[in-house]
Amino acid sequence: MRPHTTVYCAVSVDGFIAREDGSVDWLEAAGDASEEDYGYRAFVDSVDFLVMGRGTFETVRGFGAWPYTVPVVVLSQTLSPADLAEAHATDARLSTRSPRSLLDELGAEGARRVYVDGGRLVQSFLAEGLIDELILTTIPILLGSGIHLFGSRGREHGLEHQETRAYPSGFVQSRYTVRRSS
Amino acid sequence: MRPHTTVYCAVSVDGFIAREDGSVDWLEAAGDASEEDYGYRAFVDSVDFLVMGRGTFETVRGFGAWPYTVPVVVLSQTLSPADLAEAHATDARLSTRSPRSLLDELGAEGARRVYVDGGRLVQSFLAEGLIDELILTTIPILLGSGIHLFGSRGREHGLEHQETRAYPSGFVQSRYTVRRSS
Repeated sequence: MRPHTTVYCAVSVDGFIAREDGSVDWLEAAGDASEEDYGYRAFVDSVDFLVMGRGTFETVRGFGAWPYTVPVVVLSQTLSPADLAEAHATDARLSTRSPRSLLDELGAEGARRVYVDGGRLVQSFLAEGLIDELILTTIPILLGSGIHLFGSRGREHGLEHQETRAYPSGFVQSRYTVRRSS
Repeated sequence: MRPHTTVYCAVSVDGFIAREDGSVDWLEAAGDASEEDYGYRAFVDSVDFLVMGRGTFETVRGFGAWPYTVPVVVLSQTLSPADLAEAHATDARLSTRSPRSLLDELGAEGARRVYVDGGRLVQSFLAEGLIDELILTTIPILLGSGIHLFGSRGREHGLEHQETRAYPSGFVQSRYTVRRSS
């Protein structure tokens, strides 16, 4: 069975997930000093795999240490195992599969829930109707320019709003499920 | 004194205010049959003027009847009074002023609150730091493509989250104030 897929992402009010150079300094600056993690740890603990594309991998590589405890798949046609080693990636593998084929593979391995991260990757999964759920945390800033989460060349998808929570920091998190088209 | 400016707008989860041809059928389809107006009437009653650009005017013109009771300014270099007459525009005038100059003019006329509507116009007001408040109603749909509210060539603006309300229809309305840059 194909695993359930969730996009969990922070976006600016104007819909960007990073500046044009991939940096997320604005996101760190906007966070408060509290212990609040906006459900991130509980969410990550609920998934069997995190799937990211090259763009997100390049950002994470810049962090210096590999931040994930969950198994990761980096979907890329161009990266090599040496890139993963250089990023100190542990419990991570490369794949050149299509989104659908990757999910089928992960499902065959017993994965039930998959976290899909990154702009271009999310767009390609959406284009094939392979996203089940969106958890979007809106950060109170207009970036003006950057990398869009959704882009402008996608398909239409009806969503079902599940819940919204506003935090004292001004972050607003909404959860939507994607309606299956008939 | 320059009047206080508010953007009041419905956007898809992927940040579009209309399809590429300007149509908002998806917005009408998403609305429920209840009497809920998401605070629109109270908001419109609180402003002295609504300012729109040519794009929004062209959409409104297609409605067949002029839907506004509030005084309207259509900011355009190309429209003519004949266009306004054809749209059955009442209590509406054309202006070719810059955003700043228009606000100064309206302020001199005693206007205290102005509603700024439409994608390109909002972008040009934002570019000059002339927006004070955003009231954004997020509709549970991914349109995939269309006209962005904010575009990709703007300036950065810090926002202050004021309140968020989720409605039974799945619409989520957030109000932000724009931080004044020093």
